[in-house]
Amino acid sequence: MAKLQIVAKNNTLVKVGDAISLAREEIKQANAKDILIAKENGMKPALLDRLTLTDARIDGMVEGLLQLVQLEDPVGEIQSMKTRPNGLMIGYKKVPLGVVAIIYESRPNVTVDAFGLTFKSGNAVILRGGSDSIYSNKKLVEIIRKSLEESGINPDAVILVTETDRKYVDELMKLNQYVDVIIPRGGHGLIQNVVQNATVPVIETGTGNCHIYVDKSANLEMARDIIYNAKTQRIGVCNACESLVIHRVIADRAIPMIVDKLKEKNVEIRGDKKACEIDSRIVEASLDDWGTEYLDYIISLKVVDSIEEAINHINMYNTGHSEAIITNDYDMARKFTDEIDAAAVYVNASTRFTDGFEFGFGAEIGISTQKMHARGPMGLDALTTGKYIVLGNGQIRE
Amino acid sequence: MAKLQIVAKNNTLVKVGDAISLAREEIKQANAKDILIAKENGMKPALLDRLTLTDARIDGMVEGLLQLVQLEDPVGEIQSMKTRPNGLMIGYKKVPLGVVAIIYESRPNVTVDAFGLTFKSGNAVILRGGSDSIYSNKKLVEIIRKSLEESGINPDAVILVTETDRKYVDELMKLNQYVDVIIPRGGHGLIQNVVQNATVPVIETGTGNCHIYVDKSANLEMARDIIYNAKTQRIGVCNACESLVIHRVIADRAIPMIVDKLKEKNVEIRGDKKACEIDSRIVEASLDDWGTEYLDYIISLKVVDSIEEAINHINMYNTGHSEAIITNDYDMARKFTDEIDAAAVYVNASTRFTDGFEFGFGAEIGISTQKMHARGPMGLDALTTGKYIVLGNGQIRE
Repeated sequence: MAKLQIVAKNNTLVKVGDAISLAREEIKQANAKDILIAKENGMKPALLDRLTLTDARIDGMVEGLLQLVQLEDPVGEIQSMKTRPNGLMIGYKKVPLGVVAIIYESRPNVTVDAFGLTFKSGNAVILRGGSDSIYSNKKLVEIIRKSLEESGINPDAVILVTETDRKYVDELMKLNQYVDVIIPRGGHGLIQNVVQNATVPVIETGTGNCHIYVDKSANLEMARDIIYNAKTQRIGVCNACESLVIHRVIADRAIPMIVDKLKEKNVEIRGDKKACEIDSRIVEASLDDWGTEYLDYIISLKVVDSIEEAINHINMYNTGHSEAIITNDYDMARKFTDEIDAAAVYVNASTRFTDGFEFGFGAEIGISTQKMHARGPMGLDALTTGKYIVLGNGQIRE
Repeated sequence: MAKLQIVAKNNTLVKVGDAISLAREEIKQANAKDILIAKENGMKPALLDRLTLTDARIDGMVEGLLQLVQLEDPVGEIQSMKTRPNGLMIGYKKVPLGVVAIIYESRPNVTVDAFGLTFKSGNAVILRGGSDSIYSNKKLVEIIRKSLEESGINPDAVILVTETDRKYVDELMKLNQYVDVIIPRGGHGLIQNVVQNATVPVIETGTGNCHIYVDKSANLEMARDIIYNAKTQRIGVCNACESLVIHRVIADRAIPMIVDKLKEKNVEIRGDKKACEIDSRIVEASLDDWGTEYLDYIISLKVVDSIEEAINHINMYNTGHSEAIITNDYDMARKFTDEIDAAAVYVNASTRFTDGFEFGFGAEIGISTQKMHARGPMGLDALTTGKYIVLGNGQIRE
């Protein structure tokens, strides 16, 4: 895999895309089996929706592969080769990680996305999708493997764990000799299971308890519009806003404006005592609310006396994802971006932009909420590592 | 810690160095207690040597801190701030990891080194050294903490785990909420214990089963000298050569020359059948030899028919540390550097150069033999992460 040339990789991505497009009826039939079983098991509508492969979603998967073709080869470059005083030339070459395992929920489109990203970056991938999508995943991986074989590439570059028994996930997480990294994608339970049990290095992704702090110097119309966007534009995503922090000095004016707007989408607002006093439409928050990622039409709201209190509150409850300040004060903007501990810190913009495409990285494999290896949206670069190339002419160490 | 300015950090490093230098008698007294107990417990001479703090070693610790002062601040820089089509400005700012835990053996100098590197990079550090060095470590950390306090810095930037019971290490390894990364430094057993049991992200360091492959086009004098250097210049280090792979075509000439030289230091050579036929001073290797990091005056030797066989053998048995080819053939050099999977791949130089100082990074916290976050010698940069700074003027996501 690491030796594949960029032209071969790109041609294969196109070929896989064509094969998926051509096989769409087969894919939808396999998917229909999953949906039938899921319905019998009483799967909730939101999850059923994510499981369902329509023509538009199949087109989306193919489009994703074609977008990858446009991106530069993420491996092969030797960065900053320098000559040491003893004549050794030392450079750092970008190389694939090796074998990447991805553990995810019942979203068959992730199967194709994950293949595309790992393949373009020269990695082999082991996929373990949710058991509810097993027929869809088997069909998709069968198509991908067939295209690889036809391109003269070892089809084991993509392996689907077809056993749905959980014990195989437990085994996978401990295969340090064979797997270089595990990336879990999904809800809190899935991710924590991997973090707690894997001995293979893990890149933690996803959970986002994102805050927006409205400073006393904020343009309140801007604050209102950004909050409305960050909360309601798409509620089930990790970069949606889950909690507001508002400076006391402008709370009387800001809160009713913000509540008016959020009520257009019937958002439930859970506030502290002060917030409830200001607007009777706000219900009282419990302590649990501050740490909750709702992924729903609910938001928490805290009134603070200072930016220090806001920063302490956010650094206590955030999940290291995306945090925003709305301010027109230079010092406050600088203080917030300096002191907030998160993958992305915003001034005067919606947290919804934390995303590989919006950041200009192209497709992403997930959003890292930890600090090791990669932080924030992870594109192809996050699927690479390096090796030092050292060119000598007989140097020995004195 | 993350907010400390570079001048304050550098002044504090100097101050700590002065304090250690001034307290050298106290330090040696504390160290003498450890040595007394270690001798009573029958500690081996090599380990006793590592435990012992002489004036020269104390000077070395101070010198290490002063060298850090010379290095640029590794945090604060915002890399490549770019403007997106919607006007958002997005840059990646280098920031400290946060809290770094270091688990190591009974080498008190690591206590000071680890403090210096984590402090300069803006991190807090939790130190857990070997129980045999507890009096030395307590004294050193006491001195460091006192200097921090006098500099107006929270002394909890450096915490020594003073309980020597192993259960506290087990707890430390699972404190995901408080610890950002664990770096184990020491032998195979210590490192594997951390890798297998930590839920906190780990950077694996150290084990080096390093090979030198002598290609058929090699300058044999150069090969001999590099092998002699890589094996015998210092035997107990992870970048020492532990195994030779020699092309069959030149084996008859190369092996006696290499054995002659290695026998100057009484190195035991354990070879495959072919090697034993060529030189009667070679003893027969068992299968276990290929995977063994001797850290001793022993080396294994395998004769191969091709570079492909050499690469397969090395990629099977190496530990991802440092691997070298001796060749004068351009294609072979390129093939070897492309296909060997290791942190550092050498052409015509001794593996002993894999080291932060030799690579020009300044001091190092260890040599990463895994692929995540950092690979190879880890300097200050490896102790940092980033956060995206996103500056808008009201952007919302459509």
